Amino acid sequence: MKLSKEILINGIKASDKRLLAKAITLVESKKAEHRILAEEVLKQIMPFTGNSIRVGITGVPGAGKSTFIENFGKLAISLGKKVAVLAIDPSSTLNKGSILGDKTRMEDLAREENAFIRPSPTSGFLGGIANTTFETILLCEAAGYDLILIETVGVGQSEVLVHDISDVFLFLKIIGGGDELQGIKRGIMEMVDLIFINKVDETNLQKAKQTKVELKRALHFLPEKEIGWKVPISLGSALNNVGLDEVYLEIENYINLTKSSGSFDKKRKNQAEKRFDFWVQQYILEKTKTDSSMQELYDLNKKNASELKANPSSEAKNFVENLMKKTI
Amino acid sequence: MKLSKEILINGIKASDKRLLAKAITLVESKKAEHRILAEEVLKQIMPFTGNSIRVGITGVPGAGKSTFIENFGKLAISLGKKVAVLAIDPSSTLNKGSILGDKTRMEDLAREENAFIRPSPTSGFLGGIANTTFETILLCEAAGYDLILIETVGVGQSEVLVHDISDVFLFLKIIGGGDELQGIKRGIMEMVDLIFINKVDETNLQKAKQTKVELKRALHFLPEKEIGWKVPISLGSALNNVGLDEVYLEIENYINLTKSSGSFDKKRKNQAEKRFDFWVQQYILEKTKTDSSMQELYDLNKKNASELKANPSSEAKNFVENLMKKTI
Repeated sequence: MKLSKEILINGIKASDKRLLAKAITLVESKKAEHRILAEEVLKQIMPFTGNSIRVGITGVPGAGKSTFIENFGKLAISLGKKVAVLAIDPSSTLNKGSILGDKTRMEDLAREENAFIRPSPTSGFLGGIANTTFETILLCEAAGYDLILIETVGVGQSEVLVHDISDVFLFLKIIGGGDELQGIKRGIMEMVDLIFINKVDETNLQKAKQTKVELKRALHFLPEKEIGWKVPISLGSALNNVGLDEVYLEIENYINLTKSSGSFDKKRKNQAEKRFDFWVQQYILEKTKTDSSMQELYDLNKKNASELKANPSSEAKNFVENLMKKTI
Repeated sequence: MKLSKEILINGIKASDKRLLAKAITLVESKKAEHRILAEEVLKQIMPFTGNSIRVGITGVPGAGKSTFIENFGKLAISLGKKVAVLAIDPSSTLNKGSILGDKTRMEDLAREENAFIRPSPTSGFLGGIANTTFETILLCEAAGYDLILIETVGVGQSEVLVHDISDVFLFLKIIGGGDELQGIKRGIMEMVDLIFINKVDETNLQKAKQTKVELKRALHFLPEKEIGWKVPISLGSALNNVGLDEVYLEIENYINLTKSSGSFDKKRKNQAEKRFDFWVQQYILEKTKTDSSMQELYDLNKKNASELKANPSSEAKNFVENLMKKTI
């Protein structure tokens, strides 16, 4: 059965998980007909979006992100929240696999009425990453989810992607970590708003405190946050539900501060502008490929690049210049 | 002093490291005037490119990539090669730092006459990653470098980027690694052509062999490589120069096999096509922003997105549709 726009929109607003999932699939699709329907749905649910807190969560593999999200999500639900868990998984570009594809993860949370769990595959797009987690967030918000947890795998570009769609960015740290992570930490640390040192118990409490001191020192070298926010570092154990309430409070503090300073709205505006640019690029390329004379030009220049007669960037420049001459 | 096209081209062909570095800086620049000069240089050096072996190298932080590259590079130089080392570092998007910015790394290799070391920062571009390592490879090849080692940090999208510009993809593995890396390994394993288990010595030889067995089992579940290549797994120690000669030979074997089967050329063609698409997108956006009527449209639609009146993708679609109506 083909789903109509109305069924989808009403289903989302009624928080129907099955129809929400269908709408997300449409948003992720590359088929033109799916995209048309997806745009219609997105357009109409806009008035019902924006009312969640979007929390980006990162940490190296093994930092305990799944356990954290499972127990943190359950805590939030117990406090009356509706929780959506999304994940950006760049490792799935080739194999279409996905972190959350592993059904054994977050089983407890998945059974909660007020939880919705969804992986968000990335796909290679013209040298970049196409990812529709931003649009998935909008759909979840329209379905009434007011806490969105967005997970990223370890290091790399996925963190920038998640940072670009989050209100607050949480870094899960394990004790120690070693010098080999310095290069990565440098990049991440600037994006981080909160740090949680995970897997802390009586046997390693001293080491955990030492890690905290080192992190503080590292943070000290970074430029101060605009709004005077000092990145809090809490210790705890996601597995044993220790310290999660503190993280919850710190998130609330951060959101309250950024909302009153105006930086919350400013960040969301900037994020929306980035998304706009991303989609402009997607739609231009799509159009280029559906117009026949543009298509001819495109094929010719691409062939030159592919036969290594010319460097790809010069051929691309030729194409764009001819295209623009032709069309103005 | 402004450098002319001729000085740069002649400098590159004479393998002048300073001028090669200047040309790379031009290629990496976002300024229109720099890009024009960069395109001129790239266009003219094309006949002198393509004659290297491009080796992508990945592994989690701590796998010993720097040490491997340093000693492997020195081995290759002793065998008559000219070696360029590039690195893709997505963590530098925000802080403009870079893995190889750390000058203490690869000191020995850096002192070699026949070595050239250069980090390759990525920069966020409209939701994707702008990275010019492909063009840097062309410049290095024109300067006579015939072995290009391209390093990536750990997991994530940077591996896809490096894979997309390499002839052969080498995975540095440490012993063990644990289940938490499964999700990542799945994605990487499909891209990998060679595996080197690093940091092996007498004390951990049994564990290393066990890791090899596990890797073999993992590879077994992947689709066979088109050309019938079985991914070889060697054991050794980059620090102690053990096993590097074997990796060198395996790379030669792989290149010979892919060259005779035609898949080497096919891969390079596909890579050039991807680069073409990447640059088309870059130049279209640039043009859009320099034409005043397009700029007005663009600003209006972007404002709607940024003020959260509409979802960014619908506004982007509006913009592209109006743009195309206007221009055909």
